Order: sequence, then structure tokens, then C-alpha cells
Amino acid sequence: MRIWIEEVYMNSASPLFLRAIRKEAVDRTPLWMMRQAGRYLPEYRELRQKYDFLTVCKTPELAAEVTLQPLRRFGFDAAILFSDILVIPEALGQELRFAKNHGPLLNPVVRSAEDLATMSAEGIEEKLDYVAGAIQEINRHLDPQVPLIGFSGSPWTLAVYMIEGQGSKNFQNVKKMLYTDPELMHQLLDLLTDAVIRYVKMQVQAGVKALQIFDTWGGILPIPLFQEYSARYMQKIIDAVQSEDLPVTLFSKGGIALLEELKDSGAAMLGVDWGTDLARARSVAGANAALQGNLDPALLYGSKKVIAREVERCLQVFGAESGHVCNLGHGILPDIPVDNVAFFVDQVREISSRLHKSA
Amino acid sequence: MRIWIEEVYMNSASPLFLRAIRKEAVDRTPLWMMRQAGRYLPEYRELRQKYDFLTVCKTPELAAEVTLQPLRRFGFDAAILFSDILVIPEALGQELRFAKNHGPLLNPVVRSAEDLATMSAEGIEEKLDYVAGAIQEINRHLDPQVPLIGFSGSPWTLAVYMIEGQGSKNFQNVKKMLYTDPELMHQLLDLLTDAVIRYVKMQVQAGVKALQIFDTWGGILPIPLFQEYSARYMQKIIDAVQSEDLPVTLFSKGGIALLEELKDSGAAMLGVDWGTDLARARSVAGANAALQGNLDPALLYGSKKVIAREVERCLQVFGAESGHVCNLGHGILPDIPVDNVAFFVDQVREISSRLHKSA
Repeated sequence: MRIWIEEVYMNSASPLFLRAIRKEAVDRTPLWMMRQAGRYLPEYRELRQKYDFLTVCKTPELAAEVTLQPLRRFGFDAAILFSDILVIPEALGQELRFAKNHGPLLNPVVRSAEDLATMSAEGIEEKLDYVAGAIQEINRHLDPQVPLIGFSGSPWTLAVYMIEGQGSKNFQNVKKMLYTDPELMHQLLDLLTDAVIRYVKMQVQAGVKALQIFDTWGGILPIPLFQEYSARYMQKIIDAVQSEDLPVTLFSKGGIALLEELKDSGAAMLGVDWGTDLARARSVAGANAALQGNLDPALLYGSKKVIAREVERCLQVFGAESGHVCNLGHGILPDIPVDNVAFFVDQVREISSRLHKSA
Repeated sequence: MRIWIEEVYMNSASPLFLRAIRKEAVDRTPLWMMRQAGRYLPEYRELRQKYDFLTVCKTPELAAEVTLQPLRRFGFDAAILFSDILVIPEALGQELRFAKNHGPLLNPVVRSAEDLATMSAEGIEEKLDYVAGAIQEINRHLDPQVPLIGFSGSPWTLAVYMIEGQGSKNFQNVKKMLYTDPELMHQLLDLLTDAVIRYVKMQVQAGVKALQIFDTWGGILPIPLFQEYSARYMQKIIDAVQSEDLPVTLFSKGGIALLEELKDSGAAMLGVDWGTDLARARSVAGANAALQGNLDPALLYGSKKVIAREVERCLQVFGAESGHVCNLGHGILPDIPVDNVAFFVDQVREISSRLHKSA
């Protein structure tokens, strides 16, 4: 199993991805893609014909194999643990299923204090020890210059799934709890924060070199409620792993206003969604944190001309300066042609190398 | 048919709604709700048992009846024409259906230059003359202190529907056209801008006193593309009706960044979606335009305590000052209890009257 390594940072002390987060000098902008291990890859689809999604997550050898697949093809600058944010609700007692042509399903849903009564974060590490196993297995094969990113859903985002039980358009049940029983909502968020902290500490112990908290549903909160229900719980997670000396990235989908709310959170890096202007994001939050993002995942449907133009526009925001990790602004879509990904990856390397040389 | 009129502006020369948009002194904050004529009202559901949605839109007496229903109950400060933004694609030749438990469906979809070739905005006024009929019928019954708002979808938002043919999660087909054939996209947007201008001019001639452009899908554009594909076409519409001396409201769903992009558009008022902080919106765009919004529609599921708290938070942003039209930050949801709407309306009147008195 050979991992692609670029000569330019072969002999550096510290991986490109981590240097960019710390705003140390870099020769080019590091790149990885959210959902880089996934359905757009033929080798992933082939493996998934034999094993269902949760079996892959729970079998360290399989999780390691799919984690490494995109690195073999494209030599990304970071690997991300193959798993799902909903393993926490499952470990807390909800049944987790992935139905065909449907998103995830959690049963039974949490709607009342009674539904919460039997749930406890204690012992969650044992229930999720297959994740530690996957991390160790991945690291056995991974080039040390390619850091492995561990991750979790944010307490708010996990709460949304646990209450709705599935994807939602209006998030009716979450909103009903938010606006009729804020105390119960906070009880659930406290439980989840405890669970997430235990979970990410276990990941760190198993060997991840960075953490990302996915706050996919941060944007369904009106801004005046975002601090109280999402940001402050994520901040507790950052505080809890502060002594571990590894960078935490917060990724709240919901535009520039959320970056403003998160810039003082202590996060080493903030994820920028594709709907946000990266230049504005830099002026709002770039002094406090590195930024990750933020090309439209659908751009990879595009012509070479348009892909090159938008990559250039994105990379120009930081130019020759450090503090930027290039990524899509959301997960790669499952029907993106692999050739377009290859072209995109080449463009990011080529353009960012040029921009850093010209400095 | 009696329309509720508040004494306080009975003798004013100009309706409260229009005064607030012009930032003239007001005694309280005017209020209406997007989708105020709709399924949450028992009298609307009763009428809809006899007539399907498009029949109501296309029959002036029925459209007038449902437009007036919420005014009889709640005495809102503006009426909005009962119609649908997709009557334009229908007039351009796409078949429009509303399937049960499904959003609208447009057939055949627009994906190529050939699909566009047979479409023309010419004569659209004749095809949509039932809208002029509805406007005249509504005005026959409407108190002159309650202005009737006409509306249209934005060219971009109509293009999204025409290309996808239905609601979408990833807007795959729109994005493919955007990133592979920008010229074709602009052709479609030019056609739609022509159609919208003809349509809103017809509405003005028929008697609407204000216009709102719904840019529901503005937020699916990355910000660097928003001017080119949405904002500049909306601006053409504003320019085209400038001589009519009636206020145009632009409502792009997509957060504070879009308000920044729209603040110099010449719009008299900007709609603020519920995900945006109204205070921030005011500091970004409030010097140029009045603001409309922006309570979370799901707030109306809430307890009286929480509804009152959030209404107060919203109204405090403008305090005793003019330039604000209170509204939800998106359409009212169909299963909101009517009693909660009544409580919400009372709270807005009571709190805003208090805030204006204390000045």
C-alpha cells in the first residue's frame, strides 16, 4: 500500500495540513475533501456491494481500507476516519438504520424527558471501541505526513437527528422542543456534550492528529439562539481537549454569521461552507483561526474552464499566505465523475504552488 | 365584508405599511405574514375542499376570497395577492401540477438551448390576465389603508424551478448548467427577466400598491456568483418599475451576505430571512432600505412565554424608529395553531405600540 507523498514536504518536520492550520509557511495549500472516502469512487462502490455501511464503519480493516482509498488515488494531505456522526445516538440506545434511497433513521425518537431518562454517556467508549480499532488500523498504513482527522457531530446537530429521527424539511419537532421546552433541550445537549467529549478523547488516545466537529444543522437556529444552543456546547468540547495539543476544526453550515459567532471559540480552524464568501470569511475570522473550504461541491460537475476559474478564485483569497486548507464547502456528491476530481486536485496543487512561488 | 381597521391610522393620509417602508413616523410596527392566506386557516382549508389550488389562483372571486380571509381574522397591515410564482413558467409553456404530498411539478424541464427555443415572454400578459382580474376583485373589497402587495419569483428562482422541474436537495441540474453552460443560463435568465417585468407591470396597472420579488433560491448560489446570476436581474426589474412610484421588496433567502449584496439594488425594502440576525441586518442594510421580517416561522409552535420573548427581541431592534415591517422570516407553516397566530399578532401590536409610545 503506497501513499502518494509530494517531494516538497517529504523532509519537513511537520505535515503540510498541520502547518497550514498553525499558519506556518507552506509551499502550497493543503487539500482534502469532505466525504473523500465515498460513493464517487468505483473501488468504494465495489467494496460496498459486499458490506453494508455500518459493517464497514464497525470493522477496523474495512474502515481502514475505505479511508485509504482516496489517498491512493489523489494523495490528499489529510485522511479522515471513515465513520458516521450517528454512531453516538446508536451508542446511547437509539436503533440506527440506513434505508435505501433514504437518509439515516433513528428509533425511537427523543421527544420527552422520559425518552431521555434511560440514556447515559457512561461507558460510551466501550460501545464505540470499534472506532478506536479503526483509527489504529488506519495509522498502521498511513504516511506520517498525512494526519488522520477524527470527528464527531456537534451536540446540537446530534440532538436534531435524535429528535427528528430522520432528515427533515422544517425541523418541526426540534423547533417545538426548542420553543416550548428549552430546559429539556439543554438536558439533551448536556448529555450529548458529555458523550462527544468522551468519544473524541478516545479518538485522540487511539491516534488521530486533528479533530473536526460537524455542526451540520447549526444554521437551522436563528442567530440569536446559536450561541446558547450550539456554539457554547462546541466550546466545551474544545476546552475538554485543550491539553491534548491537537487542532480542532468547527464546521457549522450556515453562512458568514456563524463564523462571526465562532471566531472566539478557541477553534484552531473554522470550516467555511460553499455558500459563504471566503474573502469575507477571512476578514471576519481569519485573524483568529485558520479557514477550511470552500468550493461548491457541485462545481465538480463543471467544465474544466469553470473548475479552474473557481479554484483560482478560492486560492487567491489567501494567495501566498498560510492559514488556509483547501476543501469543498460540503461533502463531495456521490455522482461526481472521478476524472473531474483528478482535474480539480491537479488544479489546486498547480495554482497554489504557483501562488506560493510568486510571493 | 368588514376589514379590521385600527383607529390609530384611520385618518392618516398614507397606510401604515407604506409609511414604515418610507421610514416615516409610525405609531406601531406594521405586520403581515408571508403565506398569511393559507392552510393554517380553517376557512381556507374548507374552500380548498371544493377547489384545487390552481383553480383558486385562476378564479378572481376565489383568489380574492382567500386573500381577504386572514385580514378578516387578524387585520394585517397589508394584503398579498393569492397566487404562485410558478404561473410564469406555466405561461411560458411548461405544464404545472401540484401533486398531493409533493411540491409543484413542471414539465417538460429546461435543460438545453432547444428546450428554450420555443419560449417567449411576448403576450404573457394575456395568458396571466386572470391575475389582473384577481387584483381588481381584491381591491374592490379592500380597505384603502391596507395596501395590496403583488409579487413574482426572481428570474434566478424561476430558472431553478424550470430546470429542476421540482424541489431538489442538491440542485444538481441547475448546478450542471451553471458550471458547464453559463451562456445558456443567462439566456434563460434574460427571458425570465423580460417575462417578470411584463408581469409585474401588469400587476401595477391592475392596482397593486407594492411589489415583492421572492428569490427563494438565491442562497444556493455561492456568493461570488450571486450578483451575476440573481441580483443583477432583480435590479433590472426594479429599474423597469421605477417610474411607477411604488416600493419593491427583494427577499433573497440566504443570510446576511445576500443583504450586503442587495443593499445598493435600489430596493425600497429588503426581506430578512429568519436565520439572519435582524440587528446585524439593520447595521448592514438599514441605512439604504427598510427591512421586513424576520421571526422563525416555527416560533409559532412555541409557548406564549417564548413567543412573547422573541417578538420583543425582534421589535427591540428598531425600537421606536420606523423602517421596519414585522413579518415571519419565511412563510407560515401549515400546521400552526390559529390561536398561536392570534397571540403572536396581539403581541406584535402591543409590544410595538409600547415601544413607539415610550420614545
